[in-house]
Amino acid sequence: MQAVQLQRKFESIRANKIFETFVITVIIVSALLVGAKTYDMPSGFASLTLILDWFISIFFLTEITIRFLGEPRKRDFFKSFWNWFDTLIVVVSLIPAESTDLAIVGRLVRVFRVLRMISIIPELRILLVSLVKALPQLGYVMLLMFIIFYIYAAIGSTLFENINPTLWGDITISMLTLFRVMTFEDWTDVMYETMEVYSLSWFYYLTFIFFTAFAFLNMVIGIVVNVMEQENAKVRAEKEKDNNEPTLRDVMNELNALKAAVNQQRDQNRRP
Amino acid sequence: MQAVQLQRKFESIRANKIFETFVITVIIVSALLVGAKTYDMPSGFASLTLILDWFISIFFLTEITIRFLGEPRKRDFFKSFWNWFDTLIVVVSLIPAESTDLAIVGRLVRVFRVLRMISIIPELRILLVSLVKALPQLGYVMLLMFIIFYIYAAIGSTLFENINPTLWGDITISMLTLFRVMTFEDWTDVMYETMEVYSLSWFYYLTFIFFTAFAFLNMVIGIVVNVMEQENAKVRAEKEKDNNEPTLRDVMNELNALKAAVNQQRDQNRRP
Amino acid sequence: MQAVQLQRKFESIRANKIFETFVITVIIVSALLVGAKTYDMPSGFASLTLILDWFISIFFLTEITIRFLGEPRKRDFFKSFWNWFDTLIVVVSLIPAESTDLAIVGRLVRVFRVLRMISIIPELRILLVSLVKALPQLGYVMLLMFIIFYIYAAIGSTLFENINPTLWGDITISMLTLFRVMTFEDWTDVMYETMEVYSLSWFYYLTFIFFTAFAFLNMVIGIVVNVMEQENAKVRAEKEKDNNEPTLRDVMNELNALKAAVNQQRDQNRRP
Amino acid sequence: MQAVQLQRKFESIRANKIFETFVITVIIVSALLVGAKTYDMPSGFASLTLILDWFISIFFLTEITIRFLGEPRKRDFFKSFWNWFDTLIVVVSLIPAESTDLAIVGRLVRVFRVLRMISIIPELRILLVSLVKALPQLGYVMLLMFIIFYIYAAIGSTLFENINPTLWGDITISMLTLFRVMTFEDWTDVMYETMEVYSLSWFYYLTFIFFTAFAFLNMVIGIVVNVMEQENAKVRAEKEKDNNEPTLRDVMNELNALKAAVNQQRDQNRRP
Repeated sequence: MQAVQLQRKFESIRANKIFETFVITVIIVSALLVGAKTYDMPSGFASLTLILDWFISIFFLTEITIRFLGEPRKRDFFKSFWNWFDTLIVVVSLIPAESTDLAIVGRLVRVFRVLRMISIIPELRILLVSLVKALPQLGYVMLLMFIIFYIYAAIGSTLFENINPTLWGDITISMLTLFRVMTFEDWTDVMYETMEVYSLSWFYYLTFIFFTAFAFLNMVIGIVVNVMEQENAKVRAEKEKDNNEPTLRDVMNELNALKAAVNQQRDQNRRP
Repeated sequence: MQAVQLQRKFESIRANKIFETFVITVIIVSALLVGAKTYDMPSGFASLTLILDWFISIFFLTEITIRFLGEPRKRDFFKSFWNWFDTLIVVVSLIPAESTDLAIVGRLVRVFRVLRMISIIPELRILLVSLVKALPQLGYVMLLMFIIFYIYAAIGSTLFENINPTLWGDITISMLTLFRVMTFEDWTDVMYETMEVYSLSWFYYLTFIFFTAFAFLNMVIGIVVNVMEQENAKVRAEKEKDNNEPTLRDVMNELNALKAAVNQQRDQNRRP
Repeated sequence: MQAVQLQRKFESIRANKIFETFVITVIIVSALLVGAKTYDMPSGFASLTLILDWFISIFFLTEITIRFLGEPRKRDFFKSFWNWFDTLIVVVSLIPAESTDLAIVGRLVRVFRVLRMISIIPELRILLVSLVKALPQLGYVMLLMFIIFYIYAAIGSTLFENINPTLWGDITISMLTLFRVMTFEDWTDVMYETMEVYSLSWFYYLTFIFFTAFAFLNMVIGIVVNVMEQENAKVRAEKEKDNNEPTLRDVMNELNALKAAVNQQRDQNRRP
Repeated sequence: MQAVQLQRKFESIRANKIFETFVITVIIVSALLVGAKTYDMPSGFASLTLILDWFISIFFLTEITIRFLGEPRKRDFFKSFWNWFDTLIVVVSLIPAESTDLAIVGRLVRVFRVLRMISIIPELRILLVSLVKALPQLGYVMLLMFIIFYIYAAIGSTLFENINPTLWGDITISMLTLFRVMTFEDWTDVMYETMEVYSLSWFYYLTFIFFTAFAFLNMVIGIVVNVMEQENAKVRAEKEKDNNEPTLRDVMNELNALKAAVNQQRDQNRRP
């Protein structure tokens, strides 16, 4: 009985607008704190950030606890991806930032608190979900792109390894070099170097650029077509909702009924 | 009485086509003058530009005064953003360009007179307004992009600060470096430098490029979808204007009326 | 009488498929000749190209003459832009390529013979015309972009002239530098240089990149929307051509006629 | 009789799901093997890869043989492009990789085994076919682009050959340099070099960038419009499949039948 009352209380806190605003404020403060630490600070400021950091850690822990206790059925809490996401970030950032051997890990982990911004603002959450949903539809184009990269990287590291092992040492490093070529970043430097040994190696780079550009274009078009089909589906769904509008089928039914009436009348007239 | 006559007079000047053309000419001359000053000029030319500059300043002041006096209701003048815009530019560029200590400020301020081109040509004004209107709809994508930048900049300045303080000194300078990476500008130089210490840091750059490219693509698609919806809405609005075209609903009503007539006739025939 | 027969003869040559193919072949040969001259050639080859060059010049002159004489009404010949275009190229490339003082001009002028490829292949001609037609609709966006460039170039050459006169010497050279920044070509080198004096000058570059990117995006969208409207207009025109398909208006007229018939019958029945 | 039984057996193997999965696994293993060879390996590993390589070669040969023998009509086997494709890759990669003089060729040829991934996964095959089908429609834009490149390369190698023969030596190398300019890769370095001799040569680069950007934009729009028309055609085809839905034509026919009935009745009534 008491537990239920407590749960209700926590649920009402959770849904409270002021509570939500306060949580967002603390997230922003934690983000600013992360940013401030990258500047050189006077020593007095350092102890302030330490206190603030502990306050934020405890606040987040309390907040998650309230969220958990406010859940009517406890197991529903773990059904939401975003609850897992929040809990993970909060728990992991309990690593003490001041301990010397974990200092850098502790600082890095605190950075991810900024990600709670996404879980707390519904619009960002929707945006991210829709982005992630668009990914699998691009699966085969990305597989094709990976195959192109893999083949060219294998050829590159076979032929050019002795020319520049930093760029073409093994297949992984060659794929990184090819990604660089794809972004047009000083790609001619890479090309001119190999052209001194294999004077026709420009063909290797040009075909690679054409293939990847073509696959990339296809990917972009894939996304655009996808977005448009969604738009069209939305428009169609809207149209179908206007069910009170008569269709041609309705007109036909009405016409047939009318014909039946006219025919019946003619038969009536004829009989007598 | 006299004031109203004067106001009418100014209003007619303001609407005069020749006056408008002359204003545009003076704006173009002021733009050319700004450009000419960046070249080395013979000393005689310098005094000419000074005279011209004063003439333009006085002309613009007169023009704004005419516009203000020509307004039937004075307070309407300040309701228009573009009047504020023009007045601000004209007033601010009264700063003397020849005074030694304000010389550079005076010259810079005169540059903005070119912006009056936008306020005077209606098509440019419409274009700019429609651009500005498109911005807020991209708000959440830009917020998401900012969060990505902030997190990566925080990680970057934590890990790479000792490698190159010029690029990763604090979070602001790291964000500038990341913007550079996003534009693919010598991004491999930045990467190779950090890869010497952290050999897996390519993962940092590649994920950053993927995330920002993805968010950017989303932004572009957002704009395109937006533009298309506006187009579709325009087409639909045009269709609805053609109200004299009959709809299926009209056909149905007509059919029902006809059925009623036929039924009535049948009942008539039956009765006797 | 004779003149007409001759004109008919030339007209039939002009329309001849073999003649056309031969002209295209000569254009391709002239293009290959232009390309071949950029390689180091044995001396024997040089005299061959000289003979070939004269042959091409005379052939083109003959061809244009045939086209002109084949025209039924001579003044129609000069109404076509492409005839002017061809004549100009042919006449200008009569400049002797072997004379020493005009050698380079003569060689350059011969390059433009390749352009005759466009005037002879109808599909390329249509493509180019549609490209040129799309330009004026982009007029205002390009004007806006020019204003952005002009203002930033004026600011740049005022502030940064003393830092690097090669990049910011006057307004023209500053606009070239800004175009370089817009293409992201080593733009950070330009920025870092000015940031040493004005540490906040990154703001200048970032806002410039945002403004131009935004205007550019707008231009692309403008073109896309334009293309789509043309597509939609085509679809609509096709639909309207299917005039034998009945419209709702036709159905309405038919229904009204039917109602009149039914009413007339009822009145007939009622009268006796 | 026996031959047919054998063929049936091979056909059933070919269609077997486990067989297919095993083939894909072997292709992936062969791809990993190609990648692994680019790393420095302990000597023991080298002999392992040799054995694995021979196993893969024999397996692929067996697989192709099964596919061929499993074909009901042998000549149909050679009608499929993908069968030719697979056979070529398998036969060519029989070149011994361990022989010293063909070692590099043997290794390169084995890379192409990864391409069998495309022929075995139907979705990738469809993707590639649709990409290839889109190419010819872009033919004229690509021809136009080639003409632009050719003319600019001819001008470039005529004017700039003495400035930098590495970049402008002949028309082929000039086209490569222009491709570099088109990708904005250190294009200002190329430009500043020629501007020292011809100070107006920025005009050459800027017009080239504008022309190619414009042609490129046109190409992209061409692809997009193309994709959309395909989408629209699909939607229209779907609509036409719904043939049981009445059309306006059907309504008209029905109305005419009704009118005939009413008129007939009126005539009947009139006669007596």
